Amino acid sequence: MMDFPRTDRTVMRRAARRASYDRAAIYAIFDEAFIAAVAVTLDGSPHVQPMIHRRIGDRLIFHGLATNRLLGAIAAGAEACINVAIVDALVLARRIETHSMLYRSATAYGRGYQIPDEIEKLELMGQVFASLAGAARLAGLPPLAPGYLSGTIVVAVPLEEAVAKVNSHVDTEAGPDAIWSGLMPLQQQVGLPQPDARTVVERLVPASELQCLYESRGR
Amino acid sequence: MMDFPRTDRTVMRRAARRASYDRAAIYAIFDEAFIAAVAVTLDGSPHVQPMIHRRIGDRLIFHGLATNRLLGAIAAGAEACINVAIVDALVLARRIETHSMLYRSATAYGRGYQIPDEIEKLELMGQVFASLAGAARLAGLPPLAPGYLSGTIVVAVPLEEAVAKVNSHVDTEAGPDAIWSGLMPLQQQVGLPQPDARTVVERLVPASELQCLYESRGR
Repeated sequence: MMDFPRTDRTVMRRAARRASYDRAAIYAIFDEAFIAAVAVTLDGSPHVQPMIHRRIGDRLIFHGLATNRLLGAIAAGAEACINVAIVDALVLARRIETHSMLYRSATAYGRGYQIPDEIEKLELMGQVFASLAGAARLAGLPPLAPGYLSGTIVVAVPLEEAVAKVNSHVDTEAGPDAIWSGLMPLQQQVGLPQPDARTVVERLVPASELQCLYESRGR
Repeated sequence: MMDFPRTDRTVMRRAARRASYDRAAIYAIFDEAFIAAVAVTLDGSPHVQPMIHRRIGDRLIFHGLATNRLLGAIAAGAEACINVAIVDALVLARRIETHSMLYRSATAYGRGYQIPDEIEKLELMGQVFASLAGAARLAGLPPLAPGYLSGTIVVAVPLEEAVAKVNSHVDTEAGPDAIWSGLMPLQQQVGLPQPDARTVVERLVPASELQCLYESRGR
């Protein structure tokens, strides 16, 4: 895969070693995060909103109620800036100023468009669903209710201008001796599944169905 | 504490029952998150960036290199939109369209200003540090290096217009019987501390020092 081009707004002048334009690295960060911060300018003011995003191929896919103002703005041509950020650890160092966080962050800039075709919408929504909850689960569910698709807006933002910022190492050792220093790892983990009242006890979470979840969080 | 006023951009017309203008509820969400998505409009384009934020009193406090473009813009008067979002669970329901996520999200709109006074900067940075790593740790560290404060920009954004959006319940039961349904909880957890090479083994993480961390993540 080709690297993303460096542009005025993606080139990091400070801490340039933390920047990456590698498509696979950037995609991996977008894929791991469950939600993205989606920013647009509306009536001259910045707006940022958390949204479920999935990367399908070289596009980020979003969906929402057809009345969603932010997605409507992107569909109407507004520029978007989309960020995901994963904090991996707090860095407790021996000096105040070297304390920091280990993180992986990816940012994309671009203009998107609405997917008007119902067949393409259905196909994309299916891929979004499968990547969050498993293709096997999708296959076992009843078809969408009539009217659901027409009440839903699906927006694609092509990944054409993007950058990752990764802080994976910080020196905690410089400074005085007399204090515990190192990393406090932070992990987003899948907890014990909580079946609803109608789920029969024997029907434990089918491993195959939710494998995708455990795999992507497998830490 | 007074509720936040409802404004055009904070009033939720859809799913209004998920909206809250309660100051304590909104503060609690800002306090729990380690990073915020900070959005501004720069040269007509939206920019969003993850930043360490802390709520101190009725303000959100940010800091960065004095050259930080986004904080510089806020200091120069640009409007900001700030969001934090915490995903608590994936909701696996019995119909495709009732799948969702449980989450808590808080959004603030406002204009901020730079803290120019070095004594106030030092005081605020100390509070930011203490709320992330503990006041006891701060007391045990050497003083800041000369020049650090002048190379750091500290920006405050008063919390005057804000809203929380909380999805704490979704009906998973409507739909056919034959599938596991319920919640897949997601939790951000503090992992096993990783001491650096200079930390002597006997010096285990002092509970008092990092209590704040464990408490705020105490799940």
